[in-house]
Order: sequence, then structure tokens, then C-alpha cells
Amino acid sequence: MSSADWLKEHVRDIPDHPRPGVTFRDITPLLARPETLRAAIELLAAPYDGAGITKVVAVEARGFMFGAAVATAIGAGFVPVRKPGKLPGATHAEEYALEYGTDRLEIHRDALEPGERVLVVDDVLATGGTAAATARLVERLDGKVAGLAFLIELAFLEGRDRLAGYDVHAVVGY
Amino acid sequence: MSSADWLKEHVRDIPDHPRPGVTFRDITPLLARPETLRAAIELLAAPYDGAGITKVVAVEARGFMFGAAVATAIGAGFVPVRKPGKLPGATHAEEYALEYGTDRLEIHRDALEPGERVLVVDDVLATGGTAAATARLVERLDGKVAGLAFLIELAFLEGRDRLAGYDVHAVVGY
Repeated sequence: MSSADWLKEHVRDIPDHPRPGVTFRDITPLLARPETLRAAIELLAAPYDGAGITKVVAVEARGFMFGAAVATAIGAGFVPVRKPGKLPGATHAEEYALEYGTDRLEIHRDALEPGERVLVVDDVLATGGTAAATARLVERLDGKVAGLAFLIELAFLEGRDRLAGYDVHAVVGY
Repeated sequence: MSSADWLKEHVRDIPDHPRPGVTFRDITPLLARPETLRAAIELLAAPYDGAGITKVVAVEARGFMFGAAVATAIGAGFVPVRKPGKLPGATHAEEYALEYGTDRLEIHRDALEPGERVLVVDDVLATGGTAAATARLVERLDGKVAGLAFLIELAFLEGRDRLAGYDVHAVVGY
């Protein structure tokens, strides 16, 4: 069995959540076991170890679970991207589409030096809207998006299409 | 200079945030540097390494930044505590006081086995309200709170008084 298949066994399917017809992929059983948690972090980080990444950027809240751990694993710093009004310093903002309406994400203006190589980390790649907005925030600060790493990719939502031109890495696919 | 003093140099004071008279302790500069990020995780984890902790529990959003990293450092699993409606499975909830009104935190009912030794991790100990609610959630599941570890303690808010009887560890104090 591959590492990905083994991790997938610890993802719990919750049917009809958050609404009828949608299957929610719940990673809490995977987080709860030391071996699967450690493997998830290692497999997220592995392609980028030694790749000169200086910052890992992750979006609240679930992205934070992996962001700092992956940053430590590859010897990078960590930069949080947050919902509006949560970061205390001066920020840049980018909008992204929700099913109905839009939302915004913010990054501190001093979060990156120009030219830094950045890895964006999140738990799930769905439509790619938040990941694309995060990549734009990095580029607003003249950072270079060296990759985007996801624990889970919901391939049928075609998030990779929205991230065309970027290096996209997913540990487990559906 | 002690490790704590060195970390403190990378905490940015933001005066009058979120309101006049309050100084916000912004840890983003500390997160951004690989050496200080790594030291913060190591110093949070150190007193509990080898202490038989099986789960680290942390509260969204900022607690997530350290929770999984500390769990990995001490060989434990990770359990998220979240705001209402965010966890997809069956939950228990506990209320805690805000300055005006109350809010609630939730934990999955199957997040712990009875008797597990739990470390609660968060970035800041302020009044201790969310930490106390998190400890109650752990105890609702018959878990044993073996300690509560915070990167920063705002001692003048007397959060330790609300956590009397627990082992409380803070890396940096104000």
C-alpha cells in the first residue's frame, strides 16, 4: 500500500456535509494519530526540502495546522494569511469567490522580502479560489510562488486549472 | 540573553490594538524567522517531551499554528477545538465569556479515548477563558489535562488564576 493510500484510510467520509450530495473529507482521524500526522507533514514537505524555500504561507484556520509544521520541517519561516481584520499590522487584501458572493484574505505588507521563495500549504485543494488568492498576495509582495502543497486534492473540482502555471503538489487525491 | 528574552525581541508591540489602551503582542515576526519559529516550538514542547502525552489539543485559529508542530515534536496526535459548526462530526460544546456576551468551542466526541494524557497549546494566555473551556472539553471526554502550554503569558490578566490546579507553562511573559 502506498503512503497516500494509507493516509486515505484515516480520512473519514461524512456524507451530505455541509449539505446534501456533498461528501466531506474529514482529516481529524489522520491528525489524531501520531504516525499519520507525522507522515502527512513529511509528505507535504518532501518535494520542497532543499528547494530554497524561505517562507511557508498558509490560510486560516485549517491551513495553520500544517503551515508551521511544514515550515519547521524544511527550515523556513511561517507567514499566516487571514480573514479580514485579524492581522494587526498593515495588510494587502485579495478577494476570492464563494458559492454566493466573495470573501477576502489578507497578508501583512512586511511578511516577505522581494524575491523570497514561497511554499503555499493548505489541507484541501477544492476549487482553488483561496489558493489562487493566496498566490496573488505573495506576488503583491514580490515573492515567488515556488509551489502549492495540499494534503488532499478534490480533483473533480478542477482546482489545478485555476492554478495553471504553478507547481501543485497533492499528497492524497479524490 | 535567555531564549525567552531572545524570542521576545521578535514579538512586535502594536499600541492601541484592537482598541485604545491595549498593546497587542504580534508574533508574526517570530513566526517569520526559521530560528525563532523552531525555538518557539521546541520551548513549548520541551517540558512535555517524554511525559506520556498522547494528544495535543489546540484552539482555532492561532493555536493551530503551534498545535500540530508541538504534537509532532513530542510524538503525539493532534486534536482541533473549533468555533461552533466547524467540526463535521458529533461534538461536545463549552461556553466561555467574552468581554460582552459568550462564545462556544467544540470538540469531536470521538477525539479522545478515556484516560488519554492531553497537552493544551495556545499562542497567548490572556484571561484564560478559552483555555479553561478547552480543559473542560478534554475532561468531558474523560481525558486528563497534563498541562497547558502558551508561547506568551499576559500575566497581568491573571489567566493562571482561572487555570488553578493545572500545570501551566509559558515561554515568554509580560
